[in-house]
Amino acid sequence: MPAEDDFTVTPYAVEGDVDYDRLLEQFGADALTDDQRAAFPDPVHPLVRREVFYAGRDVDAFLDAANAGETHSVVTGRGPSGPMHVGHVFPFYFAKYLQDRTGALVYVPVSDDEKYLLKDESVGAISDHARENLLDILAVGFDPERTRIVVDTADADVVYPLAVTFAKDVTQATVNATYGDPVNVGLSFYPAVQAAHLLLPQLVEGRHPTLVPVAVDQDPHVRVCRDVAAKRRYDVDKPGALLSKFLPSLDGPGKMSSSADAPGILLSDDREAVFEKVRTRAYSGGRSSVEAHRRRGGNPDVDVSYLLLYYFFEESDERVERLAREYREGSLLSGELKEIAAETVADFLEAHQERRASLGPLEAELPKFRLAEAERRNARRRAGFPDDSLAQQ
Amino acid sequence: MPAEDDFTVTPYAVEGDVDYDRLLEQFGADALTDDQRAAFPDPVHPLVRREVFYAGRDVDAFLDAANAGETHSVVTGRGPSGPMHVGHVFPFYFAKYLQDRTGALVYVPVSDDEKYLLKDESVGAISDHARENLLDILAVGFDPERTRIVVDTADADVVYPLAVTFAKDVTQATVNATYGDPVNVGLSFYPAVQAAHLLLPQLVEGRHPTLVPVAVDQDPHVRVCRDVAAKRRYDVDKPGALLSKFLPSLDGPGKMSSSADAPGILLSDDREAVFEKVRTRAYSGGRSSVEAHRRRGGNPDVDVSYLLLYYFFEESDERVERLAREYREGSLLSGELKEIAAETVADFLEAHQERRASLGPLEAELPKFRLAEAERRNARRRAGFPDDSLAQQ
Repeated sequence: MPAEDDFTVTPYAVEGDVDYDRLLEQFGADALTDDQRAAFPDPVHPLVRREVFYAGRDVDAFLDAANAGETHSVVTGRGPSGPMHVGHVFPFYFAKYLQDRTGALVYVPVSDDEKYLLKDESVGAISDHARENLLDILAVGFDPERTRIVVDTADADVVYPLAVTFAKDVTQATVNATYGDPVNVGLSFYPAVQAAHLLLPQLVEGRHPTLVPVAVDQDPHVRVCRDVAAKRRYDVDKPGALLSKFLPSLDGPGKMSSSADAPGILLSDDREAVFEKVRTRAYSGGRSSVEAHRRRGGNPDVDVSYLLLYYFFEESDERVERLAREYREGSLLSGELKEIAAETVADFLEAHQERRASLGPLEAELPKFRLAEAERRNARRRAGFPDDSLAQQ
Repeated sequence: MPAEDDFTVTPYAVEGDVDYDRLLEQFGADALTDDQRAAFPDPVHPLVRREVFYAGRDVDAFLDAANAGETHSVVTGRGPSGPMHVGHVFPFYFAKYLQDRTGALVYVPVSDDEKYLLKDESVGAISDHARENLLDILAVGFDPERTRIVVDTADADVVYPLAVTFAKDVTQATVNATYGDPVNVGLSFYPAVQAAHLLLPQLVEGRHPTLVPVAVDQDPHVRVCRDVAAKRRYDVDKPGALLSKFLPSLDGPGKMSSSADAPGILLSDDREAVFEKVRTRAYSGGRSSVEAHRRRGGNPDVDVSYLLLYYFFEESDERVERLAREYREGSLLSGELKEIAAETVADFLEAHQERRASLGPLEAELPKFRLAEAERRNARRRAGFPDDSLAQQ
């Protein structure tokens, strides 16, 4: 076990007891200020106002563009390694909040290549995950006019040429230092693919501020891409980042659910499954007996049921504050809090699942979210490929 | 300077005085046997019967299929780093010889990605080279029914997914040991792209013997691909190789012109340029004066004019033997040999240039050589991507 203050955070591993402030120093990112939080569109999203998104890079440029009605984009992706759990969907709903309020362009890269290279699963299995995940992403309800979904192997005609151009500026030493030694050469290359993801909105639409909302463990991807952008071979801004804390898994806040998969509540769980998981598995900050709880109160800060509500599922600040107060005082029991959390999460998932069920087959729904031919051409041209490029026949 | 028996041969560097037999031991390839040479279609191509192609891997399987009328393919590519010189075109004319005699499928991968990653040139400049090179390749006169040309960034929809699947079986350590440390992560990944090139005919057409005619310095690419094929994730044979010695550059046989670019006679050189280059720059095995030459004779084995004829340009064995004999005897002067070589090369290039000039624009000529949709689908399916793949919308 790592010592108390000893932790490791990379895109492939989160270990130990994470000190979020020290992490910012390590990474060189900035804590969000009150002014920045206030500059998010009203009402400020709970993930921001409750400081789950707690830090960032170049957030001001994004907010300025958003508030001035200028082009701005959000990139939030998915690695299709299996079914999505509730933690995976936060950034998508957050992106939709920005799209609804400020007209943000939303780009969703689906990195089936990385997951195949990283996991002991077949191309077919990863492809099945991708199709399922895409339906969940579409269920969020993005505006097809302002949203583009890119699947790395299916949109390789644009992703690979862009990644090649960016790969020229990424050394193996940088990748090894940032991620640890890759287990195969596909993962050596993947940071260049990630750079293509994060710069894609600017290559399609022209230079503008991009924000990448990610768990803080994914910041290295953003930094590698920012270094590529800083080379100024291309007319792009460095993409900004909005960095979140890790959602606690059901087992409690000590066991981080990073952006990597963790057992938890799945987007496909029905009401019964949600209640069963929260009742039997959600780590409780309550006391060992009802009597002790009533007398001494519980600790909401480590209670997963409370944290689910606080992080994302309960919109009302008044209500989460009241629940925290009553839990601390002992008037709200652990079992009662679990019922409230399960109910709220189940309601959310039911609505999500209804939207998903109302979709047509992926083949019918996805095309309007894919890059148009002219958009592909723009991206390739801005990456340096001539307009009479061989690909355009 | 390296010691006499000290040499290095990698796909990116050829240094020293190459001992071709020792190289086979190092690489683990086999010298061609008389039986194998005789099994090439009649009349056996000069490159084979004069032992420029002097070694190989799994050559028998290819020849058996070729002689039995079964599916067999040749893969010979081009890295578009600049104008093609005469050395670059040998493998293409050799592939055409096989296609004409035995109906070989010919696959031509054009690795614009690698050249961009390796050279200090822009994407646009590499793309221009690719377009010029493609016209030279088309001028060889391949049968569009049996020939497929693939440009990595332009055919990334099939090249990248295949390369990803193969990348899973290629470690960074293998790449570092085989090629030396790559200067960027694009080149880390490139061996997986190369594996896609060499396995592509089998992924499109089904399992069959493939032969890759390359200068011996490119053998590491073939070996990495053979290792991938040997994992048996895919229903493919290991690609075979036909390995050639290096064509001497104009400066003489001590300075190797590997498959990398070297100054020399360009495919675009006119008659005057060819004569000028051969007369003034082709290393001579003759004596320092006409008198000394008449008395003591010249050495054809190091004479570039002779070697041009011997390696490729003079079809008639009787004639090259007579020229060698007369040169050794001193009755054929160095200047006379140069005129003969320049004449022969210029005739060849004139015919090549006429075929090139008779082509329409690339946009009109190339499409019939590109992979058809069904062929792309076949390749992706055989690499494991499901038939309902997202790419097929």
